[in-house]
Amino acid sequence: VTDHASPAAQPTLARRAAGLASSLPASPDARSIAFDSGHAFPGVLPDLTRECVVALTTCRPETLQYAPRPGLADLRAEIVRFMASDGTSVAPEQVLVTNGAKHAIELICRLLLDEGDAIVVTTPTYFTAIPIFRSFGVEFVEVPQDQHGLDVAHLRETLADRAKAGRRAPKFVYNVPDFHNPTGVTMSEARRRELVELAGELGFFVIEDSPYRKVRFEGVSVPSVASLDGNARVFHVGTFSKLMAPGLRVGWVTGPADLIARMIQLKSDGGSCPLTQRVIVEFLRAGRLPAHIAQVQVTYRANRDAMVAALGEEMPDARMDVPQGGYYLWLTLPEGVDATEVARVAGERGVIVLPGSRFFARSDAPHPGNHLRVAYSHATSDEITEGVHRLAAAYRTVAAGARAASVS
Amino acid sequence: VTDHASPAAQPTLARRAAGLASSLPASPDARSIAFDSGHAFPGVLPDLTRECVVALTTCRPETLQYAPRPGLADLRAEIVRFMASDGTSVAPEQVLVTNGAKHAIELICRLLLDEGDAIVVTTPTYFTAIPIFRSFGVEFVEVPQDQHGLDVAHLRETLADRAKAGRRAPKFVYNVPDFHNPTGVTMSEARRRELVELAGELGFFVIEDSPYRKVRFEGVSVPSVASLDGNARVFHVGTFSKLMAPGLRVGWVTGPADLIARMIQLKSDGGSCPLTQRVIVEFLRAGRLPAHIAQVQVTYRANRDAMVAALGEEMPDARMDVPQGGYYLWLTLPEGVDATEVARVAGERGVIVLPGSRFFARSDAPHPGNHLRVAYSHATSDEITEGVHRLAAAYRTVAAGARAASVS
Repeated sequence: VTDHASPAAQPTLARRAAGLASSLPASPDARSIAFDSGHAFPGVLPDLTRECVVALTTCRPETLQYAPRPGLADLRAEIVRFMASDGTSVAPEQVLVTNGAKHAIELICRLLLDEGDAIVVTTPTYFTAIPIFRSFGVEFVEVPQDQHGLDVAHLRETLADRAKAGRRAPKFVYNVPDFHNPTGVTMSEARRRELVELAGELGFFVIEDSPYRKVRFEGVSVPSVASLDGNARVFHVGTFSKLMAPGLRVGWVTGPADLIARMIQLKSDGGSCPLTQRVIVEFLRAGRLPAHIAQVQVTYRANRDAMVAALGEEMPDARMDVPQGGYYLWLTLPEGVDATEVARVAGERGVIVLPGSRFFARSDAPHPGNHLRVAYSHATSDEITEGVHRLAAAYRTVAAGARAASVS
Repeated sequence: VTDHASPAAQPTLARRAAGLASSLPASPDARSIAFDSGHAFPGVLPDLTRECVVALTTCRPETLQYAPRPGLADLRAEIVRFMASDGTSVAPEQVLVTNGAKHAIELICRLLLDEGDAIVVTTPTYFTAIPIFRSFGVEFVEVPQDQHGLDVAHLRETLADRAKAGRRAPKFVYNVPDFHNPTGVTMSEARRRELVELAGELGFFVIEDSPYRKVRFEGVSVPSVASLDGNARVFHVGTFSKLMAPGLRVGWVTGPADLIARMIQLKSDGGSCPLTQRVIVEFLRAGRLPAHIAQVQVTYRANRDAMVAALGEEMPDARMDVPQGGYYLWLTLPEGVDATEVARVAGERGVIVLPGSRFFARSDAPHPGNHLRVAYSHATSDEITEGVHRLAAAYRTVAAGARAASVS
């Protein structure tokens, strides 16, 4: 009999497993309607054959060898240009190309974190980031947010209280300031300024994870946190997953040049794929990005509107703040309704949604149990209609059960 | 003034930087001849345009969305088939597709290692793996090798001594058993059997890193360590970098199914690139791999022969065991000649080679200083002639200086 629970391996494996149990994905059957993921709408996946043929013929010696560790020079230059057009000024040596945004977050963790370090996240926060942080053995400090985003005054108080109590200062604040995942809230400029000021004052870093920044349907873009950073305290994480296609697996991180240089050394993976990097460079140089972003905006706005309308009709009990962009709606069910149970019953009835409980980092603190995250990004109009119908039926079943239990 | 040396960040950053200083690549100028890297010979980079067009048209919804975390099912099946054809039987759920082999090594470390853990490496060992291990804060236990590979009897004694002294057992043994990097030695079947037996007995794991296994020019293939593993103790790391092209950035790891399942959860990167995975599947299904491997073997054998001949003529003082495959020659210069100085002078004269000192994991133990690693994989015939000529001149200069110093 094989014994993986040998004395040497046991503590680490147990911790790793405990840290990751909550990240297991649901396994929907094929006929289920999936409102759970951040997939792209299939109709907006671009045709990249021309770019790929150029990459594999004209550029073959580049695209089939190892790439430079920081990323192709041409791609770093394009990222600098792209961010400059969005009001954020960085130098090429401040840019590190990664295998998607989550890889960037992991590299920042490897750079900054030691076991037992504290980090700050919002309540709720991006659920896929939670197991990454947890695998580094962090202590989570949760701060609330409101319609203006992360509550910086509350953060300041929390950190002051911790300092008084002799508890260690957090290494960084992790946030999704544009169309927050899962709540859809965009952090106001005033709050962003307060956050970078506090970071400079207390010496922590800020991770600005901003995949949805360009997926804006209306309203005016807020300056990136990185653009307001006068103290070299902000890591900005970007990705081509939401700009072009998730399957390219190319993201980037910008930050202080000396720390990016150390991350480049930590990124001991033989360089990110030069083939997909070159495909992106060719796409950007051909000037295809603006039209593609416009198509994404139009498509996802229509999806959002369809889902908001369907929910208003079928589930009038569910409250929500309609976001101006992004992929998700964050529903608040009436108090006392167990959203995890709603998600479970919905799954049985053929629609996959995520219970809000998945988005809270601390397992040892109480959190509201009546939220659902619903993704409108990659469903068709028919799927939205039918999926919301199924979800509403599941909700009514669970709510009726809850009422009956409270009466009896 | 920005202060990254804030109290919170300081210890981690210092350790990370110290651990990585030795991994900085040399920066050759454009006219230098590079004998330092594991790049592919440009002439054997395959034409993948057909595969890529299929991937981006017929398979677009798959290749441009997120991939399943373990890898495309079709690719896992192809890897199972490929390994079976090589005598190693694994089930699909034992296969995890990664962003290259180094990513696989890093994931194994994340699964198994805690700060301060001990691991075993050969003297010398693969230099790019050293900073990965070091970034996890490991203690290195070095074991020697001879012409039969890692000396398992010596390992057994070392581990018995450690146990007696109350020092912690190592979590794993890392080795490159086929055409070892840098020495080119292939571990004998008897030694492989002894190693898996010892692993089962003492409860450590074995990482079999085998990128060069198919780059064999002559002689008979030895069963993989994984194929001899009766105790579910072996992780086998493979890569398409050496089978097809480094730029694809697709590797894999096989191991005990329960541990692979945990690694899949740890691999929180949104899945490896489905585009390059599909390109590989199409290439394999078209039956192109055997002919491609044959071409690689013929090309690299010719390169090896040319370099061995040139070294024999120009640097008769340099001893070497001619490897039956792989990418590298491991040169032993006469005692007292400083190979690091030879590499430095060679760099000035326009040929980049790596000093053997880069391949020793422990910085607190004495190692021989008279080795050089020379890659023949991606140089042309003219570059081999001219590069060895420059290297020999650098060697003579340094050796003459050493003789003069010892006489005076």
